Amino acid sequence: MKATTYSMQTLSTKQVHIRDRFWSDYQQLVKDVVIPYQYDALHDLVPDAEPSYAIRNFEIAAGRQEGEFHGFVFQDTDVAKWIEAVGYSLMTHPDPKLEQMTDEVITLVAEAQGEDGYLNTYFTIKEPDKRWTNLVDCHELYTAGHMIEAGVAYYQATGKRQLLDVICRLADYIDTQFGPEPGKMRGYDGHQEIELALVKLYHLTNEERYLKLSQFFIDERGQEPNFLKQEWQKRDRYSFYGGSQQDRINLEYCQAHAPVREQKVATGHAVRAVYMYTAMADLARLNGDDRLHEACRTLWRNIVDRQMYITGGIGSTRHGEAFTFDYDLPNDTIYSETCAAVGMVFFAHRMLQLEPRGEYGDVLERALYNNVIGGMSQDGKHYFYVNPLEVWPAANHGNPDREHVKPVRQKWFGCSCCPPNVARLVASLGQYVYTSTTDTIYTHLFIGSEATLDVAGEAVTIQQTTEYPWNGTSRINLSMTRSLSFTLALRLPGWCHKAELVINGDAVDHASIVKDGYVYIQREWNDTDQIEWRMDMQIQVVYAHPNLRANAGRIALQRGPLVYCIEQADNGERLSSLLIRTHEPLEAHLATDVLGGCVVIEGSALREQVEASVDELYRLQEPERVEQRFTAVPYFLWGNRGEGEMSVWLRKV
Amino acid sequence: MKATTYSMQTLSTKQVHIRDRFWSDYQQLVKDVVIPYQYDALHDLVPDAEPSYAIRNFEIAAGRQEGEFHGFVFQDTDVAKWIEAVGYSLMTHPDPKLEQMTDEVITLVAEAQGEDGYLNTYFTIKEPDKRWTNLVDCHELYTAGHMIEAGVAYYQATGKRQLLDVICRLADYIDTQFGPEPGKMRGYDGHQEIELALVKLYHLTNEERYLKLSQFFIDERGQEPNFLKQEWQKRDRYSFYGGSQQDRINLEYCQAHAPVREQKVATGHAVRAVYMYTAMADLARLNGDDRLHEACRTLWRNIVDRQMYITGGIGSTRHGEAFTFDYDLPNDTIYSETCAAVGMVFFAHRMLQLEPRGEYGDVLERALYNNVIGGMSQDGKHYFYVNPLEVWPAANHGNPDREHVKPVRQKWFGCSCCPPNVARLVASLGQYVYTSTTDTIYTHLFIGSEATLDVAGEAVTIQQTTEYPWNGTSRINLSMTRSLSFTLALRLPGWCHKAELVINGDAVDHASIVKDGYVYIQREWNDTDQIEWRMDMQIQVVYAHPNLRANAGRIALQRGPLVYCIEQADNGERLSSLLIRTHEPLEAHLATDVLGGCVVIEGSALREQVEASVDELYRLQEPERVEQRFTAVPYFLWGNRGEGEMSVWLRKV
Repeated sequence: MKATTYSMQTLSTKQVHIRDRFWSDYQQLVKDVVIPYQYDALHDLVPDAEPSYAIRNFEIAAGRQEGEFHGFVFQDTDVAKWIEAVGYSLMTHPDPKLEQMTDEVITLVAEAQGEDGYLNTYFTIKEPDKRWTNLVDCHELYTAGHMIEAGVAYYQATGKRQLLDVICRLADYIDTQFGPEPGKMRGYDGHQEIELALVKLYHLTNEERYLKLSQFFIDERGQEPNFLKQEWQKRDRYSFYGGSQQDRINLEYCQAHAPVREQKVATGHAVRAVYMYTAMADLARLNGDDRLHEACRTLWRNIVDRQMYITGGIGSTRHGEAFTFDYDLPNDTIYSETCAAVGMVFFAHRMLQLEPRGEYGDVLERALYNNVIGGMSQDGKHYFYVNPLEVWPAANHGNPDREHVKPVRQKWFGCSCCPPNVARLVASLGQYVYTSTTDTIYTHLFIGSEATLDVAGEAVTIQQTTEYPWNGTSRINLSMTRSLSFTLALRLPGWCHKAELVINGDAVDHASIVKDGYVYIQREWNDTDQIEWRMDMQIQVVYAHPNLRANAGRIALQRGPLVYCIEQADNGERLSSLLIRTHEPLEAHLATDVLGGCVVIEGSALREQVEASVDELYRLQEPERVEQRFTAVPYFLWGNRGEGEMSVWLRKV
Repeated sequence: MKATTYSMQTLSTKQVHIRDRFWSDYQQLVKDVVIPYQYDALHDLVPDAEPSYAIRNFEIAAGRQEGEFHGFVFQDTDVAKWIEAVGYSLMTHPDPKLEQMTDEVITLVAEAQGEDGYLNTYFTIKEPDKRWTNLVDCHELYTAGHMIEAGVAYYQATGKRQLLDVICRLADYIDTQFGPEPGKMRGYDGHQEIELALVKLYHLTNEERYLKLSQFFIDERGQEPNFLKQEWQKRDRYSFYGGSQQDRINLEYCQAHAPVREQKVATGHAVRAVYMYTAMADLARLNGDDRLHEACRTLWRNIVDRQMYITGGIGSTRHGEAFTFDYDLPNDTIYSETCAAVGMVFFAHRMLQLEPRGEYGDVLERALYNNVIGGMSQDGKHYFYVNPLEVWPAANHGNPDREHVKPVRQKWFGCSCCPPNVARLVASLGQYVYTSTTDTIYTHLFIGSEATLDVAGEAVTIQQTTEYPWNGTSRINLSMTRSLSFTLALRLPGWCHKAELVINGDAVDHASIVKDGYVYIQREWNDTDQIEWRMDMQIQVVYAHPNLRANAGRIALQRGPLVYCIEQADNGERLSSLLIRTHEPLEAHLATDVLGGCVVIEGSALREQVEASVDELYRLQEPERVEQRFTAVPYFLWGNRGEGEMSVWLRKV
């Protein structure tokens, strides 16, 4: 497994300037609202929100104040993800005041680091002698991983080494503790994360040890004798979280039930799973490891063909925040955690780097435009942890089986992994738009942006203008200093069944140059060449695989990358009584007055009536139906108008 | 609230001999299989079943052997319900050997009773100084209540006083501990049961103290200051079942959140609720307490119109085995415990004694013929605790949100309240068939049987012959020593929209003599008069109230009192892909080869196909439909042919 380098190059967020009607607002929101708000949240300054304690823990660990540790054992990661988000934001939105505030937080983090490089406020404050004794439950390497990602991003943004030095010392220390060598632990974390973080640190530093350590964690996982199982037996089968002695350890939960190359089905905690698959894809690429690549493909197929919600969400049950099994995708008792959709974006992104196949871009886009940004409110201050496809607020309040589903976004969470995860993804969006090889520029996402890349040995600037996702046309301008022969590859989205390619005003037949979801335009390009890629955004009526029992007889509406839903605010309550007339015309139009302006879908429906005269629960009369117009709104915007019913999968006539 | 006696008389099980093609087999099964099997289970003699420990606990408490208490704190009740079932069975199926075995168990129970009358193996063995310190959690009065019911039944069956003396001493002792008088606890049990048991003991003994004590428990419940809350505060807000200190006590769970006369909505643990409503109806009748009667009516309406499954089941969530809220009746995450349906039979029976309204008989019949007997397998050795309306075995195994739903009946349970509850109900079925007033004989259920009653001052024998529930005709023969003027009231079931009355061969127009669900035939009756009551059993397509979102667009099939379901065994897997063609003829016929012989419903359906060529989870193609015959079987027989999908609510064309 000697490293053979595949040719696909990812651009850094710093290289891609987003100037987009849709996303610039989101990035500005992250900068102006989300990052400051989360700063306040981490400092326990948000009134009426659950306290975070995260900064306080660092202050105690750093010896700046006295006190007890509070919060989850992995509370540090909220700070790490916030720093990482700041890093990405600073790359494209410089802000000296924010940078200074962050430098202060970083100084605090540095002070909390031990002499030996160890960094974790829980164990430093509370159980200093228990380091590395419970990797199943205690997230020590996971927490380290997030800090490593933060340090990489912040260095890339600012060139400042303080946090980079901290994380290198941390990674070096971890490298002395874990590995196949005698005297080291042949262990790995219950919650994957450090594996992908170490790959990033390797990319930045070129230090092979970091790559090797990541590889070790991936290779060792699930091997016999099973490290996590032995560790659990060593502590008499008790969990960190209390309770009685356990009969068994659920190794599927943390994907440690089998060596990763032998795993065929996505199982267990969904975030852990996709973070691991992300690192696996990274390592497959960096090492030319075909078996690992094949495992990634198999797991990808299982998720995408069997276990993914139409919104790109994953996780069918709150128990273990986990995958369940093929075709089990309930809409109401769903989990579909925001973090898991963020992880799907990572996984898709890495698969794309391995192989330019449009379906990776399709899923990346699906998760991004639906589940991920749906996880945050339009004001940037409220978040979903769980992203349901069907909501009946009375049931979320009144039936404990559904109380994990919140009908409106929350201010903050005791376990607040999701808000900073959305923030860091939105702030780093630039890196997902393009990739390049020596002779090809790939455009994966249709986001107004400008980037300069090396292609065919020259610098080429690509500028994209679009009203996506409301309109399917993307205009691309190329600038270069002299004519240049290379390939421009444009993603042909899976949802798009009719597209037109226009180059410098001339229609170009692209049928023959489509391969695996990309249109490959190879030619001698000139400065000021203009490409128009017109993807027809028809409203689509989507059906689920008949094995997906929860959606039997139901349809979903999609337009472009956006999944739609109906809400009580537009359609009245009792959405289950609405039947879409799919044979009548469905119309999409920009509604400037709805949810800050969005394209809504309208059409004709029938509505089953409640007759006041028949109160019986069970009766022989079929409900009367009357005609009613219906309005569907983009799923990502749901729940921004107070509590009400919502449904993605709809009945039809 | 001086006792004014309503005139409705219930017959004892002893008075009613069941000779019925449907039920005699069940009663014989209870006698030959269920009672001996449960005897073995209680004695831990069933291989591979969870041990009960129930008899062992009594032996330890009685000093016959050394050991620890095992099982739930209310484990004694399994023994009590078994004795009660034996009592009912002996009333109509004498069995000297069984009686002797039971006498031995009763001697053991008697030996376990304390000098002061206290009887509870948990507290006797394990925490003798903790009596009456945790009524919220520890079921002491509940356990006493079941033993009282057992003692009453066994005395009525055999005339033997041993257990009756035990329970009188127990009740007398409890009466010294609880009551409004100074020095007594103003308390009541977290799990209602003793209230209805004391009414039975009063009926048998005419001892007013028992009635007064029952009345006290009912009247005191939910009053301020709240006894259960104070008790919980006194023990520092810890639960008997461990865990951390509690923030709040859920008084709705045990219906102690408000005085019972002020409760409008069925809430909390479903079994506790209906056991309480049963006692409330008893006391309303015995004391002529109109406010209590009104409360019963209100709670009845709430359950029947808003919170009851079509099978007569109640309890929409496993969390607290509880009611949730109006119209929340999920089919898959359902609870619908067998015991709760048994409790619905009790409640309906008491409402019927208060007021002869057909709807009480309808609900009694619905719960009995669907949920209750569905709780037991045809071999009498396997039981459901939870009675779902939709089963996908893969989900019950693979999704923790549904793992409380078992796709096949189980041998026994750690908490085995349900099996003996079904046994005692089936064995005591006779008492539910008829009631009488001074001048009227009511026939509530259509079950082949013979009973002799006092009416108009004379003994009249009523003999019923029927093939119900397969056929809607009931033939009634009256025997008496001389002509007699009285009224024969026959229930006109709510499901029946066409009935014919034939007396001694002559059709009689009954339209004018129907009132509140009964046909009142008042005349001078003669010995050998024959009445034929022909209730037309059409197959009915039933719709749910549109507010019941889980059943939107679905139908259920019903024929007579039986709710039907479709099973994988008859219809293949993926039942969600089957659409019933309700406009095509539906046919019912006796299938002698199906499930031991039953009436099945057959008809035409369309089935959505899985196309091998389209594997995508989400697609634009609507599934192809092909015609397929379908077969529906009575719900109570589901799950007797191995694991498979099952559904009560069906899609339709």
